[in-house]
Amino acid sequence: MNRIAATFFTFLSISLFAQDDAATLKNIYKQSLTNGQSYAWLDHLSNEIGGRLSGSLNAQKAVEYTKAELEKLGLDKVWLQEVMVPKWVRGEKEVGYFMANGKKYEVNICALGGSTATSDKGLQAKVVEVKSFEELAELGEENVKGKIVFFNGAMQADLINTFEAYGGCSKQRYAGAYEASKLGAVGVIVRSLNLRQDDFPHTGSMGYLDLPEDKRIPSAAISTNDAKKLSEIIASGANPEFYFKQSCKQYDDVLSYNVIGEITGSEFPDEYMVVGGHLDSWDLGDGSHDDGAGVVQSMEVLRLLKESGIKPKRSIRVVLFMNEENGLRGGRKYAEVAKEKGENHIFALESDSGGFTPRGFSFDCSDANLAQIEQWRSLFKPYLIHFFEKGYSGADIGPLKNDNIVLAGLRPDSQRYFDYHHASNDTFDAVNKRELELGAATMTSLVYLFDKYGVNQIKNAPQIKD
Amino acid sequence: MNRIAATFFTFLSISLFAQDDAATLKNIYKQSLTNGQSYAWLDHLSNEIGGRLSGSLNAQKAVEYTKAELEKLGLDKVWLQEVMVPKWVRGEKEVGYFMANGKKYEVNICALGGSTATSDKGLQAKVVEVKSFEELAELGEENVKGKIVFFNGAMQADLINTFEAYGGCSKQRYAGAYEASKLGAVGVIVRSLNLRQDDFPHTGSMGYLDLPEDKRIPSAAISTNDAKKLSEIIASGANPEFYFKQSCKQYDDVLSYNVIGEITGSEFPDEYMVVGGHLDSWDLGDGSHDDGAGVVQSMEVLRLLKESGIKPKRSIRVVLFMNEENGLRGGRKYAEVAKEKGENHIFALESDSGGFTPRGFSFDCSDANLAQIEQWRSLFKPYLIHFFEKGYSGADIGPLKNDNIVLAGLRPDSQRYFDYHHASNDTFDAVNKRELELGAATMTSLVYLFDKYGVNQIKNAPQIKD
Repeated sequence: MNRIAATFFTFLSISLFAQDDAATLKNIYKQSLTNGQSYAWLDHLSNEIGGRLSGSLNAQKAVEYTKAELEKLGLDKVWLQEVMVPKWVRGEKEVGYFMANGKKYEVNICALGGSTATSDKGLQAKVVEVKSFEELAELGEENVKGKIVFFNGAMQADLINTFEAYGGCSKQRYAGAYEASKLGAVGVIVRSLNLRQDDFPHTGSMGYLDLPEDKRIPSAAISTNDAKKLSEIIASGANPEFYFKQSCKQYDDVLSYNVIGEITGSEFPDEYMVVGGHLDSWDLGDGSHDDGAGVVQSMEVLRLLKESGIKPKRSIRVVLFMNEENGLRGGRKYAEVAKEKGENHIFALESDSGGFTPRGFSFDCSDANLAQIEQWRSLFKPYLIHFFEKGYSGADIGPLKNDNIVLAGLRPDSQRYFDYHHASNDTFDAVNKRELELGAATMTSLVYLFDKYGVNQIKNAPQIKD
Repeated sequence: MNRIAATFFTFLSISLFAQDDAATLKNIYKQSLTNGQSYAWLDHLSNEIGGRLSGSLNAQKAVEYTKAELEKLGLDKVWLQEVMVPKWVRGEKEVGYFMANGKKYEVNICALGGSTATSDKGLQAKVVEVKSFEELAELGEENVKGKIVFFNGAMQADLINTFEAYGGCSKQRYAGAYEASKLGAVGVIVRSLNLRQDDFPHTGSMGYLDLPEDKRIPSAAISTNDAKKLSEIIASGANPEFYFKQSCKQYDDVLSYNVIGEITGSEFPDEYMVVGGHLDSWDLGDGSHDDGAGVVQSMEVLRLLKESGIKPKRSIRVVLFMNEENGLRGGRKYAEVAKEKGENHIFALESDSGGFTPRGFSFDCSDANLAQIEQWRSLFKPYLIHFFEKGYSGADIGPLKNDNIVLAGLRPDSQRYFDYHHASNDTFDAVNKRELELGAATMTSLVYLFDKYGVNQIKNAPQIKD
């Protein structure tokens, strides 16, 4: 065959590849949008079960429900993987207010996950406001001792990726009590990690690290509206007394489970591809965006593969991880068992950024694999999926990281995520059915392409022009 | 200068251009997100004024409010442009139900804009269901005469652009009564143009075209849930009687206004660039997405230009068009006056697709200008603005079309738009502040670039690598 003919045939086979893939993606999106299961699953998880904090009865119900639903899909295997998880319980609804200029201002407050309780009578003290650990350090022990430290660092509004804004001040929530206690503070209140001004307090994990028991001071979040009000009162020269009461408690670890389903690969059954989200949630809302959405989208990936008549070459697993929020025990356990068994994981995709309109993926992978993904860009264009960049994948799949695996995170539109994150308004009605379904289809499409072409195999990938 | 040096200097000047533009866009986005005015304006327009149907007192209040707000911005000119508009009034809240198998099913119903009333006692008749004009024609007069035609064509869920799905079945709303009346129908009910299953009836314009007065049959929309129920009942073999009552009325045209503000160009004052949305809305909600968002974003464009210290070379006008929803009189009037005065309009941008996260623009322009826009793509990348395609711009700016003008439409994420469109849930709380502000910044950035580089002047545009 001469060179021109060879080029022609190469071109022909490439075009056929690309057409085939385009048709497959079109069918995947159509199935998800017209005959999807994700929204009905989320309805049950959110409205029939509700918030699923690790170690709770609801978390166990979610394990049983999702396992039963996966069993209905006709997968090759469905099983539970045991994992011991922390059990922290909020107790009674928290109460908080501050007194200034002879007036009482009620605040919307919630204990941070992992915090100790106040005494039965609550905790009352003068407040000192800071916006960073640097400001706290400058104040020093003489200005902090015996007081409640009010961390009022706000998420930076001009960052387009709101997760970046979250990352910029999440340490005040996680380590605020640790830093304040070292200077003799008696309690910590944190501005909710929310870009919006509203009345919802947002919980989330905090840790005492190596602090001894008697230094573990109560830590709570107040709403952005209340943080604004408190800050204004302090700025006016008043010296408010802050009171709050919470009765949360840490119990011994309890047995829970990761829920796993598998379509066993037809050609390379020993190459594993994982798609997942986390089954646990915080307790204030019903965890619809965080991470009910990721759970049902991941389940939907396997359903859509089967529904579309795709027989994967590689073993595709859905993993519904337990305890992402306050321990990451499920993610660690899955990776540990995979390592023990010598399972070759080549790809893992997590959806844990809300059920909003998908924009693309961020990848933790080699340059070669990113180049491969670039070649698929035009296949995603009809679905307005445009974001393919290196970056963070997901907490639960993080422990699988090695030099060869492709880790990916679904990147939905992030603008509204922190309006709901870890708050009582993270509920089913905040999720749009189409946005959820588009996310599931987008995930399925990426899994389909990686299964078909493998990783690190650029030469087999289709050459698709943009 | 030798060739290498020339290339170097060209490269240098291009880089400086691009850096300058990148910094300008960054500042525009920052201003909008941290110090924006759009959300506060929308709050007033939605919550203090409310729905602004053409010819209503609220529409007049909106004219006065936006004029006063534009006057505060220190523009070079602010004025009202007279325009006669239709005045249609809904009257009492509509009532509807159907009877089948001895049971009464209440339905959520609203008159379509422009419809006639039923008699005071309401209208009752047997129902015949169709999903298209073709199905209606097949039924013929013998099956339609004396009945209420139920148009139950659903928006196609697997279209990614929901406006395409809207376009696919909006004629049943606009011309359903016309087609049904010709076959002797006594009334029309239309499935709401909503992709979601819910209880909100969605209004919108309809027309009788050349039908004589006595053939103008009442026309109303019912919610998607009620359409589903009614269709199921019909499919079960029942032969329901449908009843509805509405008291809407068309009055004589009344005087209203387009609201216009201008920053006069420093170099080419006779080249006009327009940015706008429509000030009128339907009456059921408060018109926050349709098109309060477009109104305040357009006002914000001029404010952000001034705030960012940009002195436009060309004359930039914000035009708040009256009567897009049921007449387009404002858009026609503006173009008519511009033509009379021989004003050279080179660019117009409309925002009328909701206040959702912006994805880009569609352009009605020459290939040369689209190529110019392509060169700016990388400037928008940090803001996740990726969609630059030929397509529809906007209804109000449409009458300005000629061979030279660039018409553009902001393209926000379209997934949620039809959940709210023309329904009572199109309210302020459905608009996210950041999404609105990102749209305003995106519009301002495009206006800035077109003002700086002009249209059809590829040679002056910066050569920016993606």
